[in-house]
Amino acid sequence: MINIKRPTLLLDKQKCLTNIAFMVDKAREKNLVLRPHFKSHQSHTIGRWYRNAGTEKITVSSMVMAEFFAADDWDDIAVAFPFNIHEIDDANRLASSITLHLTVCSAETASFIANNITSPVNIYIKIDTGYHRTGLNPQNKGEIDAILDVVHHSDKLSFTGFLVHSGETSKMRSKEEVEKIHFDSLGQLSELRGTYEKDWPGMIISTGDTPTAVLMEDFTGIDEIRPGKFVFFDLTQHHVGACSISGISIAMGCPVVAKHPERKEIVIYGGAVHFSKDELLLPDGKRVYGQVVELTENGWLDKPVEGAYLCDLSQEHGIIRGDDEFFEKTRPGMILGVIPARACLSVNLMQGPVTTDNEKIDHFSTVKTQYDA
Amino acid sequence: MINIKRPTLLLDKQKCLTNIAFMVDKAREKNLVLRPHFKSHQSHTIGRWYRNAGTEKITVSSMVMAEFFAADDWDDIAVAFPFNIHEIDDANRLASSITLHLTVCSAETASFIANNITSPVNIYIKIDTGYHRTGLNPQNKGEIDAILDVVHHSDKLSFTGFLVHSGETSKMRSKEEVEKIHFDSLGQLSELRGTYEKDWPGMIISTGDTPTAVLMEDFTGIDEIRPGKFVFFDLTQHHVGACSISGISIAMGCPVVAKHPERKEIVIYGGAVHFSKDELLLPDGKRVYGQVVELTENGWLDKPVEGAYLCDLSQEHGIIRGDDEFFEKTRPGMILGVIPARACLSVNLMQGPVTTDNEKIDHFSTVKTQYDA
Repeated sequence: MINIKRPTLLLDKQKCLTNIAFMVDKAREKNLVLRPHFKSHQSHTIGRWYRNAGTEKITVSSMVMAEFFAADDWDDIAVAFPFNIHEIDDANRLASSITLHLTVCSAETASFIANNITSPVNIYIKIDTGYHRTGLNPQNKGEIDAILDVVHHSDKLSFTGFLVHSGETSKMRSKEEVEKIHFDSLGQLSELRGTYEKDWPGMIISTGDTPTAVLMEDFTGIDEIRPGKFVFFDLTQHHVGACSISGISIAMGCPVVAKHPERKEIVIYGGAVHFSKDELLLPDGKRVYGQVVELTENGWLDKPVEGAYLCDLSQEHGIIRGDDEFFEKTRPGMILGVIPARACLSVNLMQGPVTTDNEKIDHFSTVKTQYDA
Repeated sequence: MINIKRPTLLLDKQKCLTNIAFMVDKAREKNLVLRPHFKSHQSHTIGRWYRNAGTEKITVSSMVMAEFFAADDWDDIAVAFPFNIHEIDDANRLASSITLHLTVCSAETASFIANNITSPVNIYIKIDTGYHRTGLNPQNKGEIDAILDVVHHSDKLSFTGFLVHSGETSKMRSKEEVEKIHFDSLGQLSELRGTYEKDWPGMIISTGDTPTAVLMEDFTGIDEIRPGKFVFFDLTQHHVGACSISGISIAMGCPVVAKHPERKEIVIYGGAVHFSKDELLLPDGKRVYGQVVELTENGWLDKPVEGAYLCDLSQEHGIIRGDDEFFEKTRPGMILGVIPARACLSVNLMQGPVTTDNEKIDHFSTVKTQYDA
């Protein structure tokens, strides 16, 4: 095990590779194109692990992230974020050298792209089947038709298909709840396909979330999946039911710096600048940022410490509460493992993890200023 | 105004300098040593603005941050975080070249330092007068005496004094509430001074939070203040009553990428990786991450857009809700300003702001890996 002296985000590379292989195999078995979301890891190194597993197409959430991965020879990239018209120069630069897919949810934006793009570019129409973050209601045929009309009259734009992200599945707490969302979404998408497939025979339907990709078996009418979080999983995904604790590939190692018997609280070096403040709501109503696991020589135990949670965060401090036994045996100087509530944000803040074999994994955040001009 | 094409954290340098000057003047007027907390900005550049205003002593929240500022010639640094025994080598390196103050809240940690430190080092005892994050209850004379006994018998340790941080003031919503906490804390600290001053005549009392430092006038019994957040202020500090909106020196510029009439929601490029997920609870129970301000040629309007809040965040998306007028006039492609709920975490995520004169301000996060060995 590496020597931890400060908050250190550990990656179990083998678990990560297993997660990647699982999803690659599942997509193949279900005859789906896997276009994994690379915003979760934002790493050239981890991207190459996917490439070694056969991945050729990827998803990112920003134009700068697309440029970052294009620089590592990814040449089929979807930016699954409503196109920001201020980045048209970036889009032109990228579209001239790779197969670029942009996402739109208005004819206004589609027209802007059509009028300003200088190389062929592919368009996904963002559809909202219930998450209500962004995207068009599939009943909004007026706007969908208007976008497709723009595509039809452009010599640069092609229609890739409809893109949906059922992000609400990560708030669910059982497979049954995920299934309900999934089938509801499938129904809406199937109707869309029925309406548009005859005029746009090559169009695809692309869905995006990890719980659906992991837990569902029936992908009728889906052509492509874009999950990302499964590469690490996290405590939230565990509570959805998308992974066991043993499937989670990251844990933060944090030094204990104080203990307070009057409140039965342990203070760790590990705060909001390490974990982020994305919380998980437990069944008993408690809001937590992570759960304690015991670190071992080569990683951490598969069984978390029952009842021991990261309950509060300030900038650098974390507060852990657990039962009496946990409190008694925990002493300043010990290193506790913490499975984060939300892996992607922790990975981003930590500028990438370190493998349990002490290999520092690169991360976009350490170089992003060079893409930020 | 600089040309914004992606989420950009803007700093109004003049407001920032005014905030620094205000606190420097206030400390001087009240006969207090100002040891500002540099975790808020984590920047050599902004540190120099303080230095130009006469600041000589600083506070940081980690050993690596202490090294970062020591590298820019700060030579009296307090690490206001319970000492992490795994960083003893770092402490030795620093203590050999600067005046270093460490913080402890147990005799066990104090003994560890006494037994392992190789250069003179100064000790603050962390006292908890009500925030309950970390620190000793001032009634816990047993532990305080035990720490002072360790200091007394060490030829390397000196006792700086008692250090308290009333972080709970940032959850208050009026000057009266802050005042109540302040006087309660003053009472406890005055009793501590009474108990220990005769044996430790040079000891000081150091307090830490921005609302107290800004709003209070009576600092009887206090020798030193360590506020940090006032350098930027933010929406949370505004709701405490510690600043007007016009005193806040930062705002995020975010492109609008979509609007959804059916939900009256605006989608911006600006998410949890830009703002952090630290929320502010409004009086009406709404949880928000920021409030909209209108950007101008040279900054932003002092009056925020009433009722227009950043209400939800995912990794890169932000959801803004406002009234009908705001919704109608907001269009994709516009750049909205957003005053963040919590400046320090946004500054950290954005790797430092850019001034409205287009000067990129350095930030520790871009170089921290070199201190992280």
